[in-house]
Amino acid sequence: MTAPITIDRKPLPPGFLDEVRAVVGERLHTGEAIRLQHGSSETHYDPVLPDAVVFAHSTEEVAALVKLCVAHEVPVVPFGAGTSLEGNVTPVRGGLTIDLGEMNAIVEVNQEDFDCTVQAGVRREQLNEYLRDQGLFFPIDPGANATIGGMASTRASGTNAVRYGTMREAILSLKVVTPEGKVIRTARRARKSAAGYDLTRLMIGAEGTLGIITEITLRLHGIPEAISSAVCSFESLKGAVDTVVQSIQLAVPVARIEILDAAQMRACNAYSKLSYPEKTTLLFEFHGSERYVQEQVETVRELASGNGGDEFLWSNLPEERSKLWKARHEAYYAAIAQRTGAIGWTTDVCVPISRLAECIVETQQDLAGSAVPSTILGHVGDGNFHVIFAIDPHAPEEMHEVEAINDRLVQRALGMDGTCTGEHGIGIGKQRHLVDELGDAVDMMRLIKRAIDPKDLFNPGKIFQL
Amino acid sequence: MTAPITIDRKPLPPGFLDEVRAVVGERLHTGEAIRLQHGSSETHYDPVLPDAVVFAHSTEEVAALVKLCVAHEVPVVPFGAGTSLEGNVTPVRGGLTIDLGEMNAIVEVNQEDFDCTVQAGVRREQLNEYLRDQGLFFPIDPGANATIGGMASTRASGTNAVRYGTMREAILSLKVVTPEGKVIRTARRARKSAAGYDLTRLMIGAEGTLGIITEITLRLHGIPEAISSAVCSFESLKGAVDTVVQSIQLAVPVARIEILDAAQMRACNAYSKLSYPEKTTLLFEFHGSERYVQEQVETVRELASGNGGDEFLWSNLPEERSKLWKARHEAYYAAIAQRTGAIGWTTDVCVPISRLAECIVETQQDLAGSAVPSTILGHVGDGNFHVIFAIDPHAPEEMHEVEAINDRLVQRALGMDGTCTGEHGIGIGKQRHLVDELGDAVDMMRLIKRAIDPKDLFNPGKIFQL
Repeated sequence: MTAPITIDRKPLPPGFLDEVRAVVGERLHTGEAIRLQHGSSETHYDPVLPDAVVFAHSTEEVAALVKLCVAHEVPVVPFGAGTSLEGNVTPVRGGLTIDLGEMNAIVEVNQEDFDCTVQAGVRREQLNEYLRDQGLFFPIDPGANATIGGMASTRASGTNAVRYGTMREAILSLKVVTPEGKVIRTARRARKSAAGYDLTRLMIGAEGTLGIITEITLRLHGIPEAISSAVCSFESLKGAVDTVVQSIQLAVPVARIEILDAAQMRACNAYSKLSYPEKTTLLFEFHGSERYVQEQVETVRELASGNGGDEFLWSNLPEERSKLWKARHEAYYAAIAQRTGAIGWTTDVCVPISRLAECIVETQQDLAGSAVPSTILGHVGDGNFHVIFAIDPHAPEEMHEVEAINDRLVQRALGMDGTCTGEHGIGIGKQRHLVDELGDAVDMMRLIKRAIDPKDLFNPGKIFQL
Repeated sequence: MTAPITIDRKPLPPGFLDEVRAVVGERLHTGEAIRLQHGSSETHYDPVLPDAVVFAHSTEEVAALVKLCVAHEVPVVPFGAGTSLEGNVTPVRGGLTIDLGEMNAIVEVNQEDFDCTVQAGVRREQLNEYLRDQGLFFPIDPGANATIGGMASTRASGTNAVRYGTMREAILSLKVVTPEGKVIRTARRARKSAAGYDLTRLMIGAEGTLGIITEITLRLHGIPEAISSAVCSFESLKGAVDTVVQSIQLAVPVARIEILDAAQMRACNAYSKLSYPEKTTLLFEFHGSERYVQEQVETVRELASGNGGDEFLWSNLPEERSKLWKARHEAYYAAIAQRTGAIGWTTDVCVPISRLAECIVETQQDLAGSAVPSTILGHVGDGNFHVIFAIDPHAPEEMHEVEAINDRLVQRALGMDGTCTGEHGIGIGKQRHLVDELGDAVDMMRLIKRAIDPKDLFNPGKIFQL
C-alpha cells in the first residue's frame, strides 16, 4: 500500500465537536468503523482516518460546518460515494469529513430545457432512473455509481465522453460553499454565458480544495429513439485503434467506443460469465433515429472489416446491450478478481488519438516484463486508457514495480503531449506528474488556492503541496 | 456615447518607452491616429487612448513587454481585431496596448487529431481558408472576422454554437504570459484531462485581466459530407421558437438556427439586396452525410409546418448558402445602416430556451414604446438573442433610453434564470449586471484577480472594479 504524504496533523481543538453537534446533532460520528470507511480508498492508498464524520442534510448545514472549521482551523474534506481512485478524499491531515451522501434530492427537472438541478449526493444511477420516465438521460458514466458532486470534483468522464463530453461540458452551474462560508452560485441556467470568470469550470476538477459543491445544475439529453451496441475483436491493436480514428474522421457520432485487451477480455469472460473471443476487442454503442443508427452501424462495420476486424456482432436488443455494458462496468472488479486477495492500482493517461496505438503498444511491451497481473481497457475515442494492476497488498516490491511502470507510462504520455490523468484527478498520487505535465502553471494554481483558501483547510494536501 | 469609468490614469514613467523600444524597435507607435484606432470601439463607447501601441511578434516579446509594464506599473491591454462590443479592449487607464494582430501564424495542424495550434492574432476566416484543403474546419463563428485570441478572451460563440459549442468547448490548451512574466501552457493536447485546476477555462472569458493569451490549441471538425441550408418565415414568434425547441427535443443536430424578426429581415433585404418575406424568420444549416442531412431537413420541415411556418425553402447549393449566411453576417451593419449616421448598441441576454419566446415577446412590447430604431436577431438554439439599436450618437436622450431598455431586458432575463451576456462579455458595460447576476461569486473573481494580478495592471477596469 502507498502511504499518503501526511503533514501537520493536529488534534481537534477543545469544544469543536460540541459546536459541530449543535449543527448536525446525531449525525456527528466519531466511531472508528465509520472513520475508517471515510478514510479508505478503493485502490492502493493506505487509509488515513478523519477525526470525525458528519452527514450533512443541507447547504446551510455545510455552510455552518465550514464556518466552524475555518474558525477553529480544522481541515475539512467533502465525501461523496468514496469511489475515487487517487485517494482524492483521503483526509491526510485529519479533521472533519463532511459526507454529502444523504443530500440526495433531485431538486428540479426542466424537461423543456434539458437540464436538472440535484444535490451533490445524488448518485448517477439514481438520477437516470428518475429521469427515464421523462425521456431524458444524464450521459456521463464513469462506471462506478458515483455521486454527481464527486464526479464534478474530479472532472469525471467515462464511456460516453466521446459523444457527450465530460463533467466539464455537462455542468451548467454549481452551488458552492466557499471557504468564507458564503453560498455562491457560479452561473445561471442559460446554456452559455460570457459573464466573468468561469468559476463553474474552476470548481469542476478542483477536488474540493476551493470550496464544497452542494448542488449541481446538469445538462441532460433526450433518450435516443434507437440504441444499438456492437462488439468486434481484432487481430491487432492497431486495427482496432485505426477503426476508431477513421470513425471519428468520418464524424460518426458513436456514443461509446471502448477498447479491452485480450487479458481484460479473459478477465471479463471469467467474472461476468461470457464467452467473447479473448482478443483485443472494441465495444460500441450507437444513438440516434432508427435510420441514422443503422447508417452508423454500417459505416463502422465496414471500417472494422477493412482493419482486420472479426465478425461485427451488433444488436439492438436491450438485454444484449445490458449484458455487454454490465460486463464493461464490472471490468475493474473482474481485473482484480483474477488474483485472490489482490487490490487494484489503475493508471489513467490520455494522449492525442494519433499517438494512442503507439502508446498502448509500448505500454504492453513494458508490462510484458512484469510479473504483476494487469489488463488494459480504455475510452479509446478520447485517447484515454487504463492499465489495471492486480497487486498483492503484502508485497511492497510489487508496489514499487507498478509505480515505476506508471512513471514510465506517464512520461511516455507526456512525451506524446498527453496528460497523466484523463479522468481520475491528481489526488494524492499524481502530484509529481502534474508538475512534469504543466510546470509553472501549477504555481498559478497555488496562487488561486492561497487566495481562496488562505488557511489551506479545504481537502488539504491534494493536487499539490502548498 | 457612453463614457467608460476612467480611474487613476497616470503618465508613463520616464524611460519606459525607451525600454519598450529596445524590445520591439520600430513597432512601437505613439501617433494619435494609431492610438485612437486602438482606443475606439465598434459600438457606443467613447474612445480612450492608450499611451502607446506596440505590435508584438512573439510570445517572448510579449513576456518582455509584460515584465516592463509590471516593473513600471504601467497598465497593459491585449488587442486583437477590435471587434468586441462591450469596450473590452478600451484602455480605460491608458498604458500600453499590445496589438497581437501580426502574431498570425498557424503553428501546426494535427489532421488525425482534429486539432491545430495558432497564434493569438490569427483570424477566424484566415484559419478556415487554411484548413479547407485538409478537409477540416473551425466552427465558432461570431460573425465578425475576429482573432482567435480575442474570441478566447471574450468566450465568444455565434451561429454554430448550438451544435459545436462555444470557445469554452473549442479550446484544448492555451499559451499565456502571466502577470509574473512567465510563459505557461494551461494544458496538453489530450482531448480531456483531470489534471488540476482548469486554467484553460479560467483564461477563456477573462478578457485579458489575468494574463495575455499568445497561442491557442483548438479542436477542429471534419468538413461535413453534405451541408444544406433553409429559410422559413412564421406568422408568430412563438411558432418559430416552438419549431426550434421541438427540433432540439428530437435531438436533430442542427448546425445553425438563427432567428431574425421582421424589422431585421427588412434591414437585411435592403442592405444585402434580398427579397425574403419581412416576417419573423428562421435560418437553418444542417451538416452530416447526404442521407442524414436529408433526414434532418425533413424532420425540421415537418415541425415548422406544424407550427405555422410558411414555405420551407431549402437548398444544398453552396452559392445559395453563401448568400444566406453573408446576409446573416451583415445583419449588424444592416441594422445600423437603416439610419444615416447611426451607431450600434447591442444587447446580449441568454435565457433557458423554455423562456425564450416569452422573453422576446416582452422585449418587443418594450421596444414598441421607443422611437429608437431596433431589430432583433439571435442564436435561438442557445436561447441567446440581440437587440440592435441604431442610435443617433448626438442624442444623449436616446442613449439613456436604450440603457433603460437594456436594464429592463437584463432584469427580465435574470428573472428567467438567464445571463446578461451570452457571448460578448462584461467589458465596461455590464459590470452592474454581473453583480446582479452572480452576487457574491463576483467577490471570488476579485480574489482570483488580486492573487494573479496584484497590481491590477492587466486590462484594468474590466469585468469588475477591484
